[in-house]
Amino acid sequence: VTVPEPSVASRRGGEVEYTDAELEVALEPTHGTPARVKVRYRLIGPAEAPVVVVAGGISASRAACDLVEPSDASRLEPWWPEIVGERHVIDTRRFRVLSFDWLVPTEFVGTGTEDFSPPRAVTTGDQADALAALLAGLRIDRVVAYIGSSYGGMVGLAFAARYPGRLGKLVAISATHCSHPFTTAVRVIQRRIVRLGQAHGLTDEALALSRQLAMTTFRTPEEYRGRFDNTARETADGFQFEVADYLDAVGEKFTARFTADRFLALSESLDLHAIDPADISVPTTLIAVRSDRLIRTGEIRELGALLSGPHYVYEIDSMYGHDAFLKESRKISKVLRQVLNQLSD
Amino acid sequence: VTVPEPSVASRRGGEVEYTDAELEVALEPTHGTPARVKVRYRLIGPAEAPVVVVAGGISASRAACDLVEPSDASRLEPWWPEIVGERHVIDTRRFRVLSFDWLVPTEFVGTGTEDFSPPRAVTTGDQADALAALLAGLRIDRVVAYIGSSYGGMVGLAFAARYPGRLGKLVAISATHCSHPFTTAVRVIQRRIVRLGQAHGLTDEALALSRQLAMTTFRTPEEYRGRFDNTARETADGFQFEVADYLDAVGEKFTARFTADRFLALSESLDLHAIDPADISVPTTLIAVRSDRLIRTGEIRELGALLSGPHYVYEIDSMYGHDAFLKESRKISKVLRQVLNQLSD
Repeated sequence: VTVPEPSVASRRGGEVEYTDAELEVALEPTHGTPARVKVRYRLIGPAEAPVVVVAGGISASRAACDLVEPSDASRLEPWWPEIVGERHVIDTRRFRVLSFDWLVPTEFVGTGTEDFSPPRAVTTGDQADALAALLAGLRIDRVVAYIGSSYGGMVGLAFAARYPGRLGKLVAISATHCSHPFTTAVRVIQRRIVRLGQAHGLTDEALALSRQLAMTTFRTPEEYRGRFDNTARETADGFQFEVADYLDAVGEKFTARFTADRFLALSESLDLHAIDPADISVPTTLIAVRSDRLIRTGEIRELGALLSGPHYVYEIDSMYGHDAFLKESRKISKVLRQVLNQLSD
Repeated sequence: VTVPEPSVASRRGGEVEYTDAELEVALEPTHGTPARVKVRYRLIGPAEAPVVVVAGGISASRAACDLVEPSDASRLEPWWPEIVGERHVIDTRRFRVLSFDWLVPTEFVGTGTEDFSPPRAVTTGDQADALAALLAGLRIDRVVAYIGSSYGGMVGLAFAARYPGRLGKLVAISATHCSHPFTTAVRVIQRRIVRLGQAHGLTDEALALSRQLAMTTFRTPEEYRGRFDNTARETADGFQFEVADYLDAVGEKFTARFTADRFLALSESLDLHAIDPADISVPTTLIAVRSDRLIRTGEIRELGALLSGPHYVYEIDSMYGHDAFLKESRKISKVLRQVLNQLSD
């Protein structure tokens, strides 16, 4: 395995050591034959610092925080800029932060001699295996903490179940051990919209609609009420509502940076997720958001009760529902600070 | 105005007098020019009995209860068979029950001489006006109670605001005085799905998807959890979930009995609904379902506090959410029995 040399990015007030690269690893996907796949990752922070893995939702990337000057037009939009970075709770001066792009089946290639078909799906277990292989390739024996939200939390649960010896603590935010049939129903509809669009040359329109639908499950009625007036205005195209303009923006933003196939694979991965909590003995912190309409607090409490190891369930109030991990930086930081301050190494 | 003679339907254990007919009325729609429209209605019960109006959701029809022998293949599916009918709480031996089909813009015709375009939308106020015109045509001066659920409740609020002298009591189940932007968002997406389908020859597929999405807002996670296993089964077409089969059935059932244009018009009517509660002085009973994800209990309490007249808010627990009015016959009957027993005439 060849591991790239770290680069150095300049930041306001200093320099930070980072690697932004890809590493090919060998995997045996749950629903496929042995394969190889390139894992795109980012490692940021001092080489000698303890490693923390950070992972977000299905639309997140390896860019948890910004790397270079914001004027760089090619840069990935950071998804957790108030949590990860210098002077934030996951401080890149204290920790070496590892994050990686989620894998999808079309990225898998054969191991050489035989005919190869991509795996029929990618599972949270596959993502966990990819992380383990990545860590091995990077010569990182152990991470002090894995901090994951939404899909990233589910992958964290899979990683903790499969690789207890490599993990100090797990933090799973708005994540459970298995998908709920109600949530699956909403996602099945999202995937059906996208597939119908794909079959009729309407991929972007359908992907945008599917994302708009997802957004109604991520947020809460309380937030919408504060943001949107519901008086209809009459136009030449009919009656328009303020919230419809917002939905337009949500759809456009998503189709600009995401593909339908990637969405389909990761959405299905959420529904295929199923971990036995009894397999998890690593100390675990679960964060539940009381207003989350996608992952209910009761399910997270249930998960907590089924874990084999020490665990703590934090419940937070928010008007942002499932998106609280992206919006409630102060509340999330408070919990993470407690967890990170108690690290033994 | 010519009013049809009542027919007599035979029922197990007796005979019941009914009229199932249509009556053309004159209307001035909110978003159009003066028009005429045929209102399809059903009036069932003794001619001398006090009249109760019954109205349901946008997919309900004038068939609140069954009229004739169930072997009649052409019959409309009754939508409230456990609430309306002989020996039920809205007893067709004690009351004369009036129900009517919701109007949609394409049903409006001109008054004669001038060029005519159908109204640009139909409002709950228009439906209330149609009911008032229907009552006038049927020589019914006053109804002792209007009992409406969901859209029917919203039309009831509009009727109470516009025609206080013609109404004894209003019961509005899972209905508020205005649409919430969150609910509007979900419905805007439903209409976008249908319009995208219509524009590309996929009307039925899109209407089915839209209904599947609606169903996830009508019911609750608790109900889904009790009904559906979430273990994926692998088939030649990919991974399948039990809840997806249910969604298929939901979509097929709806497209068999509803058209896309009718759905679009009535869905938009829900979002255009806006009544000033201060205009309502008629004694009003509001029923809120605590698990309703579409119309929240807090909004119904708010409506209650803003009404000018005497009112009572009942809150009921149910695992059926917004669909509780269709599923919780025992709990709904209990409240309706109290209201109907207190009628002064």
